[in-house]
Amino acid sequence: MAVEREAIDLFEHLCMQIKNIGIDSVHGVPGYAADGYARVNGISALMTVMGVGELSALNAIAGAFAEYVPIIHVIGKPSREAQKNKLCVHHSLGDGQFDVFEEMSRKVSCLTVSIDDVQTAPALIDEAIRTCWVQSRPVSIYIPCDMFRLPIPCHTLRKQPMLSRELPLDNVRAFEQLVDMATKEIRQATNPVILVGGYGIQNGAKQELEDFLNQVRFPLFAAGSGLAMVDSRLPHYVGLYVGSCSSPQALKIMGSADLVICIGNIQSDLSTSGFSGFVDHSKLIEIERTKSKVKGRVFERVHVNNVLQALTSKLCTSSHLAIRPVCVDSSLHSGVTKGVAQIETSVTSVGQETMLKSGLRLLKSIQSSVNPFQYFWTKATHETDYAVEKSNLITHDWLWTSLGKWLRAGDIILTETGTSSFGIWNTTMPPDSIFMAQYLWSSIGYTVGACQGAAQAARDSANAQRRTILFIGDGSLQCGCQELSTIIRQGLKPIIFVICNNGYTVERLIHGEEQIYNDIQPWNHRLLPAVFGAAPDTYQTHCVETTAELDALWRCKDFTDCSVLQLVELCVAQDDAPSNLVALARSLHERNA
Amino acid sequence: MAVEREAIDLFEHLCMQIKNIGIDSVHGVPGYAADGYARVNGISALMTVMGVGELSALNAIAGAFAEYVPIIHVIGKPSREAQKNKLCVHHSLGDGQFDVFEEMSRKVSCLTVSIDDVQTAPALIDEAIRTCWVQSRPVSIYIPCDMFRLPIPCHTLRKQPMLSRELPLDNVRAFEQLVDMATKEIRQATNPVILVGGYGIQNGAKQELEDFLNQVRFPLFAAGSGLAMVDSRLPHYVGLYVGSCSSPQALKIMGSADLVICIGNIQSDLSTSGFSGFVDHSKLIEIERTKSKVKGRVFERVHVNNVLQALTSKLCTSSHLAIRPVCVDSSLHSGVTKGVAQIETSVTSVGQETMLKSGLRLLKSIQSSVNPFQYFWTKATHETDYAVEKSNLITHDWLWTSLGKWLRAGDIILTETGTSSFGIWNTTMPPDSIFMAQYLWSSIGYTVGACQGAAQAARDSANAQRRTILFIGDGSLQCGCQELSTIIRQGLKPIIFVICNNGYTVERLIHGEEQIYNDIQPWNHRLLPAVFGAAPDTYQTHCVETTAELDALWRCKDFTDCSVLQLVELCVAQDDAPSNLVALARSLHERNA
Repeated sequence: MAVEREAIDLFEHLCMQIKNIGIDSVHGVPGYAADGYARVNGISALMTVMGVGELSALNAIAGAFAEYVPIIHVIGKPSREAQKNKLCVHHSLGDGQFDVFEEMSRKVSCLTVSIDDVQTAPALIDEAIRTCWVQSRPVSIYIPCDMFRLPIPCHTLRKQPMLSRELPLDNVRAFEQLVDMATKEIRQATNPVILVGGYGIQNGAKQELEDFLNQVRFPLFAAGSGLAMVDSRLPHYVGLYVGSCSSPQALKIMGSADLVICIGNIQSDLSTSGFSGFVDHSKLIEIERTKSKVKGRVFERVHVNNVLQALTSKLCTSSHLAIRPVCVDSSLHSGVTKGVAQIETSVTSVGQETMLKSGLRLLKSIQSSVNPFQYFWTKATHETDYAVEKSNLITHDWLWTSLGKWLRAGDIILTETGTSSFGIWNTTMPPDSIFMAQYLWSSIGYTVGACQGAAQAARDSANAQRRTILFIGDGSLQCGCQELSTIIRQGLKPIIFVICNNGYTVERLIHGEEQIYNDIQPWNHRLLPAVFGAAPDTYQTHCVETTAELDALWRCKDFTDCSVLQLVELCVAQDDAPSNLVALARSLHERNA
Repeated sequence: MAVEREAIDLFEHLCMQIKNIGIDSVHGVPGYAADGYARVNGISALMTVMGVGELSALNAIAGAFAEYVPIIHVIGKPSREAQKNKLCVHHSLGDGQFDVFEEMSRKVSCLTVSIDDVQTAPALIDEAIRTCWVQSRPVSIYIPCDMFRLPIPCHTLRKQPMLSRELPLDNVRAFEQLVDMATKEIRQATNPVILVGGYGIQNGAKQELEDFLNQVRFPLFAAGSGLAMVDSRLPHYVGLYVGSCSSPQALKIMGSADLVICIGNIQSDLSTSGFSGFVDHSKLIEIERTKSKVKGRVFERVHVNNVLQALTSKLCTSSHLAIRPVCVDSSLHSGVTKGVAQIETSVTSVGQETMLKSGLRLLKSIQSSVNPFQYFWTKATHETDYAVEKSNLITHDWLWTSLGKWLRAGDIILTETGTSSFGIWNTTMPPDSIFMAQYLWSSIGYTVGACQGAAQAARDSANAQRRTILFIGDGSLQCGCQELSTIIRQGLKPIIFVICNNGYTVERLIHGEEQIYNDIQPWNHRLLPAVFGAAPDTYQTHCVETTAELDALWRCKDFTDCSVLQLVELCVAQDDAPSNLVALARSLHERNA
């Protein structure tokens, strides 16, 4: 029986339920911090005022909607009296219409509730918060400003369950049909593979995903967004699959697959290198946050945690396939020692016949499932380090392959859309890391705010010492620079690398290489903390141009341990870009034309 | 007969027509610069990309829609092929729906056109630009990116008229009815007055407005938004009418009025001091950009220029009333010399009987139509100056009444929502000035971008030397600071006063005086130009705390002549605010509760 609570007001109830679901900090406009917070914490809250505030945050909310980031957006509306009398109040269009902004927000929210009765308010608020969590997308809660302080009747409150982070089993019939159909397809497949993205699966299904990936040992790929969703130390991890920008091995293995089990993935132009890597629906099992598709057939209201758990259980029995030898085709990556690598491919039970067929195909046509990135990782640790020459200028290709060695378990890594979010595809992510980049929405400047939210979420978490590391171009920084002020105000200590290359290199690659609209006003980035009021002993700034300088910084304990905010100007040539981005940009340019 | 032009492509045509209507600079996100440019130039253009860019600008567009600012918003969409195939491209929600953003923008645009056929494109573009100008509100033009370079058939182009800034006489029947009805109401009125706002009348009716105000000499008021729309030297100018925050004289005269001719005015909570000054529709003739209302009856598609011209002509004949003596009631503004001021109230022809009645009423019940601001203006020039003491700290009440003496004819003055936009109500505007503040939309941070756009428009104009002067609070500046970088990049030279009072004083007055959400991170504003890359000889910064320091700055030729960018930290006490704002905030707080 529920314990009787004292009467509280509507706003108190709202805040209690936000706290109940595990949110310790609430954000404001422009909303990107709420996005970053949610990607670390699992869910976040944003409060704005109708019209001006709400619209200022609409780009961030649309991005969160596109990329499955759960944000509880609370919007203060004019009083019920003002609405009823259609008053011409500020922050409105002056026409007495107050629902016009709601109609806009509705298009990028998975649920919109408009509070106008204190009796029904608690249930509506709870439904919105629960939906936000379950669907992993933004919800909007509108509350007239005269209602915030209204007391909620106790009897109403007692009916409310404490909000929790559960993903229920909603649609049992669809769920059973889905699991049967998916299992059947997987058993019938000759060369099934797994492709993991980063959309809507970070929270609520973490353990189920880990179990699935540990036990269902088909060749395993990460999508760009899923870089940190997959433990790169898993023996069946092949590497990144991003269409034509993937490694030769990845392309070969994916090319021979007859079934791709996609988990939390979105096949967009950027994630497939301009659709070059698009997998047809007829070869797909798509497991999304709240629905799944098997070869195009859609099953609604089935949640990723239940689906993964059921599939793991159905596919794996007690008998394991023996460790199978796989021949390494050394021609695919020169410099790798020839030989036979022993990798575990102990995929169990999918029907031993299927698995044997699958193994045979691998041996015959692919001859390798060694992870090239894993190879580099190992090499860096055990053989030689990355190449460092005193006079060598930093290039993107050097930066991103070397970076993995400096990263640590637990790091939170953000890369801005542009050279950074494509360069990072060449970096091996450390265990237990969190990675965020907007491969679908791609709003430049997003990561400065997201960095603030992410660092705040890290501090609010049980693992307050984990590092938050941002890579952003000098052009993008200009779109969100003042969030650095909030970082300073909150005493957060991320490491921020500003890739200085005189503007929008990613745009130059797509269109207008020499056009002034791709140039930027040159900023003195190292003055930014001081202008934003950081005390001298609360930050450090650096400028690195050569590989040796960056290496020295990475080896400096003071720097790497994040005792203060760090801002690094990382200079690269204007026309330098990660090789994969050069290829991708070319394909985008062609499609636009 | 039209001269045959060579074939041009779609984008070239668009740019030519934008240029044709008098736009020399085009803006990008977040859109406030386009708003500022339009308020000076009469119309402006903004170019963004669908989704991210478009939504980043949506707050600015909504503000322009609310406040009748004409912005041509051109939005690049994915190629027609990508749309047809519902491709999952970046900057989209990933669901193959591309019209969702258009549905949002449509709600804050007076016309939305979606180009998909090169044959009809020129006509649609021209219709959108013309509508933008006529309605003085934003329009949206969507163009798929594969169409920008398509050649436009010459025969299509030859049919297009050159776009011009005309406001046509559309609805002749409604127009005639309106003029008859309005004339009748005015003739029947005993105490008619005029109230001029700043919405949608700055451009397209400038001469007509001037003629009307010069010739129809009823007691004349400016609304807050219309501060610079009215020549304060006009003898029948009473002053500002903003409800309970108006001067006693203004309240008396407005209180006795039985007919208020509103021109380009919006009666919002802020413009009427919390509706205390709301004039009922039964007493109103409202002349708006494209429609008019007489005591609530609406006449659509009648344009402000035609209406003003017709009313001027109908109301004024060749016979003029003699100059009538009006008794000054000295008790209303102490310190004014007692006596009888001679003011011209040569309102003609409204029917001499009406005018005489009107004059009689003025004499009996009001006894004054001397402009108190005009009095100060005169006094400042001819008698003593504003009070300056070396040790006197600057207060809002001192600042805004003194400011008028420093302002010059032609100045462009921007005040940010907050203490500045209410303080300025105490300032007399110089002749030919342009004034901008968002009294309806009230999006904080708006004026930094608007200042850039306004300064750009001034430079693009025939009067390139006119000054652009911004007053903004330290809190609001943090919402739009990076626009200062664009100001520097473009070599613009506004004078920016940053009112330093440790945060959101206007919000403290309304709610949460001591709450941390009204505090801000303290910035080192004087470092801003350097951090944004301004060369040392291209800017000056200052910090003033006392009236003597500000007076010295105002007397410095270097400073006042705008040879370089000027940034002034103007320090006032945290709890100091213009007296009128204190009263207004109290009424807003009461209404919210």
